[in-house]
Amino acid sequence: MSLIDKNFFQQILDYRLNEDIFLGRFGLEKENIRVDREGKLALTPHPQVFGIKAENPYIKADFSESQVEMITPAFDSVEKTYDFMEVLQDIVSLELKDEFLWPSSNPPVLPDEEMIPVADMGDMAANEYRNCLAAKYEKKLMCLSGVHVNFSFHEDFLEKLHQAIGTDKSFRDFKNELYLRVARNFSRLRWLITYFTGASPVFHESYLEECVQKAEQLRKEDFYFPNMNSLRNSEYGYRNKKKFYIPFSSVEEYVAALKAYVEAGDLISIKELYSMIRLKGVAGENQLEGLIRNGVEYLEIRTADLNPFDKNGISKETLHFLHLFLIYLLLMEDRPYGEEDQRLADIHLDLVCTEGITANLKFGPDGTTMQETGLMIIEEMMAMVRELGMNTQKYLKVLEEHRKALLDPSLSLAGRIKKEVEQSSFVDFHLNKAKQYTQESENKSFRLTGFEDLELSTQILLKAAIKRGIEFEILDRKENFISLTKNGRTEYVKQATKTSLDSYITVLMMENKTVTKKILARNGIRVPKGKEYDNINRALKDFAYYQDKPIVIKPKTTNFGVGVTIFTGAFSKEDYETAFQLAFQYDETVLIEEFLSGKEYRFLVIGDEVLGVLHRVPANVIGDGKSTIEELVAEKNKDPLRGTGYRTPLEKIRLGEAEELFLKGQGRKRTDIPEKGETVFLRENSNISTGGDSIDYTDEIPDSYKKIAIRSAQAVGAVFCGVDMMIDDITEEAGEDNYGIIEINFNPAIHIHCFPYKGKNRRPEEKILDLLGFGHTDGIKKNEDLRTSVFNEEKTFSPKVIY
Amino acid sequence: MSLIDKNFFQQILDYRLNEDIFLGRFGLEKENIRVDREGKLALTPHPQVFGIKAENPYIKADFSESQVEMITPAFDSVEKTYDFMEVLQDIVSLELKDEFLWPSSNPPVLPDEEMIPVADMGDMAANEYRNCLAAKYEKKLMCLSGVHVNFSFHEDFLEKLHQAIGTDKSFRDFKNELYLRVARNFSRLRWLITYFTGASPVFHESYLEECVQKAEQLRKEDFYFPNMNSLRNSEYGYRNKKKFYIPFSSVEEYVAALKAYVEAGDLISIKELYSMIRLKGVAGENQLEGLIRNGVEYLEIRTADLNPFDKNGISKETLHFLHLFLIYLLLMEDRPYGEEDQRLADIHLDLVCTEGITANLKFGPDGTTMQETGLMIIEEMMAMVRELGMNTQKYLKVLEEHRKALLDPSLSLAGRIKKEVEQSSFVDFHLNKAKQYTQESENKSFRLTGFEDLELSTQILLKAAIKRGIEFEILDRKENFISLTKNGRTEYVKQATKTSLDSYITVLMMENKTVTKKILARNGIRVPKGKEYDNINRALKDFAYYQDKPIVIKPKTTNFGVGVTIFTGAFSKEDYETAFQLAFQYDETVLIEEFLSGKEYRFLVIGDEVLGVLHRVPANVIGDGKSTIEELVAEKNKDPLRGTGYRTPLEKIRLGEAEELFLKGQGRKRTDIPEKGETVFLRENSNISTGGDSIDYTDEIPDSYKKIAIRSAQAVGAVFCGVDMMIDDITEEAGEDNYGIIEINFNPAIHIHCFPYKGKNRRPEEKILDLLGFGHTDGIKKNEDLRTSVFNEEKTFSPKVIY
Repeated sequence: MSLIDKNFFQQILDYRLNEDIFLGRFGLEKENIRVDREGKLALTPHPQVFGIKAENPYIKADFSESQVEMITPAFDSVEKTYDFMEVLQDIVSLELKDEFLWPSSNPPVLPDEEMIPVADMGDMAANEYRNCLAAKYEKKLMCLSGVHVNFSFHEDFLEKLHQAIGTDKSFRDFKNELYLRVARNFSRLRWLITYFTGASPVFHESYLEECVQKAEQLRKEDFYFPNMNSLRNSEYGYRNKKKFYIPFSSVEEYVAALKAYVEAGDLISIKELYSMIRLKGVAGENQLEGLIRNGVEYLEIRTADLNPFDKNGISKETLHFLHLFLIYLLLMEDRPYGEEDQRLADIHLDLVCTEGITANLKFGPDGTTMQETGLMIIEEMMAMVRELGMNTQKYLKVLEEHRKALLDPSLSLAGRIKKEVEQSSFVDFHLNKAKQYTQESENKSFRLTGFEDLELSTQILLKAAIKRGIEFEILDRKENFISLTKNGRTEYVKQATKTSLDSYITVLMMENKTVTKKILARNGIRVPKGKEYDNINRALKDFAYYQDKPIVIKPKTTNFGVGVTIFTGAFSKEDYETAFQLAFQYDETVLIEEFLSGKEYRFLVIGDEVLGVLHRVPANVIGDGKSTIEELVAEKNKDPLRGTGYRTPLEKIRLGEAEELFLKGQGRKRTDIPEKGETVFLRENSNISTGGDSIDYTDEIPDSYKKIAIRSAQAVGAVFCGVDMMIDDITEEAGEDNYGIIEINFNPAIHIHCFPYKGKNRRPEEKILDLLGFGHTDGIKKNEDLRTSVFNEEKTFSPKVIY
Repeated sequence: MSLIDKNFFQQILDYRLNEDIFLGRFGLEKENIRVDREGKLALTPHPQVFGIKAENPYIKADFSESQVEMITPAFDSVEKTYDFMEVLQDIVSLELKDEFLWPSSNPPVLPDEEMIPVADMGDMAANEYRNCLAAKYEKKLMCLSGVHVNFSFHEDFLEKLHQAIGTDKSFRDFKNELYLRVARNFSRLRWLITYFTGASPVFHESYLEECVQKAEQLRKEDFYFPNMNSLRNSEYGYRNKKKFYIPFSSVEEYVAALKAYVEAGDLISIKELYSMIRLKGVAGENQLEGLIRNGVEYLEIRTADLNPFDKNGISKETLHFLHLFLIYLLLMEDRPYGEEDQRLADIHLDLVCTEGITANLKFGPDGTTMQETGLMIIEEMMAMVRELGMNTQKYLKVLEEHRKALLDPSLSLAGRIKKEVEQSSFVDFHLNKAKQYTQESENKSFRLTGFEDLELSTQILLKAAIKRGIEFEILDRKENFISLTKNGRTEYVKQATKTSLDSYITVLMMENKTVTKKILARNGIRVPKGKEYDNINRALKDFAYYQDKPIVIKPKTTNFGVGVTIFTGAFSKEDYETAFQLAFQYDETVLIEEFLSGKEYRFLVIGDEVLGVLHRVPANVIGDGKSTIEELVAEKNKDPLRGTGYRTPLEKIRLGEAEELFLKGQGRKRTDIPEKGETVFLRENSNISTGGDSIDYTDEIPDSYKKIAIRSAQAVGAVFCGVDMMIDDITEEAGEDNYGIIEINFNPAIHIHCFPYKGKNRRPEEKILDLLGFGHTDGIKKNEDLRTSVFNEEKTFSPKVIY
């Protein structure tokens, strides 16, 4: 038996669309209940950091105030979409205080019905809708959570197919036809995908009483139905009060049916229609009118339960399977899907949900079981993958895993969960997973999953932007060039601190060290005094003048690099001449500069504030009286902040030739055991790149120095800069000559102030967003306009690709 | 006989200050009467372009409205100061319409006394002062013009000398002492410098009647006194009504004497004291109080007549001589200078002025003549120069020339002028010179003398800034980094168009061609459509799509450089593959872009205006039916706008291998004679650097294209940019697809719009200054505060060094 439309499939192959058919856009929407440390529904409000619920396109509250909803934009691959869901998962997890994201579709420990808080959306229409729902359904029921997958075929593929087939249908009608075909086939076979994504086999005794009473007790507080796959999709789950027939014969009929249900008062709004697949139009429009006018833009698949084995609630494998399944549904024979077909499909679904795949119902006229039919479909999908010939190995592996789960229900998600619950408990299993996922988010709090190729500063800024619900686009990945948009206003940002706020000339002033020094000096700020020489003879004449002073002799254009000599003690005229000869090898102009004493501190100035002050210390370990130097290094390197290749805020300490030589200079070797509390340095230079430590001094440095840093920034007109200051002694206030500005850097690294070796995260990224005009309070007034019509869905999925 | 203080001189040598003694700061102030084409005093007002007279520090009106005064800042060399006077001379000459700068100290053809316009300074006190002068002196007298030289020894030299000598005097007192010594010696020997700088031997019959009556007639309208050297410095010139004794014994006595003369009503203000040397304090202060408080900052030497042989009114040789003379005066024996000494000095001066150096008066007790004494001084100066050993050859040459002029008065300035006047006439000689100098200014109107190492755009901007009286500083010459200051507000500018007006991100957007294209396209502006490829296989798959289209295949990061292939006609799959292979050799990412047809135009957008539109044409000549190609090239290259090495707006056309090859391709050679009106191209590329022509199309291009250019600039937020647009046909209005933006350039060259091969000067530099807030109307309100006290000199010389 085969369900594939062989003619159509052959056309795809003939037109060489075997690669293009895999192109598509993917989006995810996921709900999670917030729980406390004991797995009880959190009764706290939705975190304020996410801004106005209705305005943040990524992080909202769903039905309940305690139900976080995370929505990804559309991406052109499963992987990118999955990664972005992880980004959202990380952001939300890191902002929850002593709370966790409940990783199951089935609710956690629920309080009494009346205690469950309905989300306050700050919008009359949206609140009213929720209150109507609460009146119509049990609130406990509304706490069931799931994952929705948005999918569209790539426009290029659809266009090429339209051209190739040469139909006289318009492109819109042609596209509608394809999506309707998929929707019909999906509706017919939704029992199969529900089997694979069902992950709510067990539930807690605090769930709906009528449900608990009908169920069997698994252990103590945990209840189940034998072979139950998905409580959420079952008759005890999230379903409409009434069964509605949803026609997929044409977009017009689909729309007319929905309108009729709403007008008859059977549905509060089209949002209340809990169908497993929805036709969706362009985001932002009145949904139904938009569908009629512009046709189907994408499909929303609402089958999947939360998968507690995956941090992101759905696995990449499931997404790939779903993708292949949708392609298969497109290629499947097209048959009408009437009310009777739906009734049959509903029976299959109910059976899978409560009795599992092995429920002994003959499927279809040929008398095969559901399991047999499922296996046949998997095998036909395997053949399809082989014929299309793209990523064959990867896809076959995914299909093989699903085949196994079909053969052995204990390998299905539901089966595995039930087993885990039996071994611990419903609450413990899910709560442990929740805590584990939060820990994982914390361990990589500096990282933006899927964007690890960007600079850390940009990753941090983007993470903060997403948290605030700012839409973004990566305009140039290699250049870390992004745009940020909120409420219709766009700001462009390169490398986190190159923005519209600094003027071009300000940056050029900072770039030119001579100009910077002149301007600072003119503003009464201490800089190393200096003089320029074009020839060595003039310099030699001034020897007597410099003889007793600590000085630096350096080529004008190379900065603290080659050709630099520093004299801090007495020096001869010969030494002086040699230093000039060296410097003149690198530049026509040589600078002599006063050598400033003290320690160097980096002041991060943003706007008129010092956000952070950092001092760098060379790579070192502190003895415990027991461990060798190499053991201490290994221990210190375990810090997740330390990595290699600048992908982490700090670098691992190396123990190579340079370090061994430096130890040798101190009469030490790697196997020595330093005394308890003794600091052993492994490097002379304090660069972070060679394992140095960054120590936050923001709270220790007197305000007088911070004021100088701010004045320095203002002298060159900088909004963002890093001021490098030498300070003699930070326990004393800044005076006339106990400090000096070495340089002012534009594009200062912000990540070093977020994740110092010692000290607090100073969150400069938040200040950047505030200054760029993306403050939390923006747009509160605009909220009034956010009324939603009953024909308009609240959640919109933007099919714009971000890459 | 020797006048040198041998001990003091020996000290200078012992302390090795022989180089430092030459260091100093120099400033010039010069007046010129404006005349019409016939050499008559211009009765027009002071040109408005120079702004408010009292506010422009460089270009003012002196006593008469028709008398332009030009003032240089202080520079650290004679050459720089001289060059800056040329800058001012050029600026003023280029702004005069059918008028010229009269190059003689003696007035041109004057109207009746009452017709001479007194300058309206827009300031009550300043106007009142001028009216008092007009009442007290004849206005014709006030039309005498001259050059003042400001001089100070370098502070380093004075400090080192102070340290070396180890006196217990304060540095201020020590410095005063040195300057007073120079002033005393100068006063004693002012007859000598007057002999060398006297350049007003002949005058016109329209000068003061009493003077004409006493004088002899040289020819027709021209009068003189036999052997007269300087009418201006003579008793018929610019002198106080009364002889005042000016003590140079101490600063306190100098100040007290001046105050007393003003208080007694003998002087309207200290400005009225027409002494040949003045002690000056820090600029901007109440002069007399400042002198007492801070001591002498510099000396003002007021001896020199305008030298008509030099465009700038004083020659570099005269300035060098004066410099050496001042050093000599410092080294000269110091003797008291009482009233009797002054009386004697006055006699010597009068004699030189009216009777010349050969006046037979015994000089001093030893009975030498003035001429003999002068020769002795020159010889002693020569010995001094040899002993100090700096620039000996140059200085000895200057001294030798002066020695000759002393021996033979016909070689003196006055002698040479008298001879010229005898051969033509007073008016003709000076008027021809005036016209010649204006022509010279016009020939290099794009150039800022003394700043030729700067980019042309920066030179043009600075010239406009100086014209408006904006003070400037060159912060970094190589980088063309300047600051502009007016009314206490400073703007920094790099390369003429990098300013505070553009944001950093705007520039970064323009720098990144991919980002620019994305943003333009999003704003509905046509850009070449394109696609990026990471591997050649994907590109090959799209061959069918591109097959019939004109395309460009190029590496992503190299712009119109290597690795680029353009297909405008049909091409095979192999050609297409080869083009990709080539491009992938240079970058990991290869772009395919729509090839835009039409001609390329550069739109210079500043603010919300298109200042200029330019099209470039390859190097070419147009035949006259007689000349060979090489003759036509030579002729075209005579244009002063054409030069070599980017120092002029256009480059000379070369006739090298490349050009000969290109001619050969057309079946031509360099000796061919093109027909009349026939255009012969010598190059394929249209770069200005290879002799291309720039043709201004600003008035021809329809507004619809200009609007697109402005919208493009606005899309990236640019205030200054050059928009490169392809246009199919400029006789048609811009439509949807008859144009395309190639790129937007930050830091657009402005000079090409000032000096195109064909077309008007679009003066973008003026718009830049307007946008930077340096408009002419700025500060008119502030004028009220510009009251000048009678003890405060109006003209101040800022000793700040600009280099």
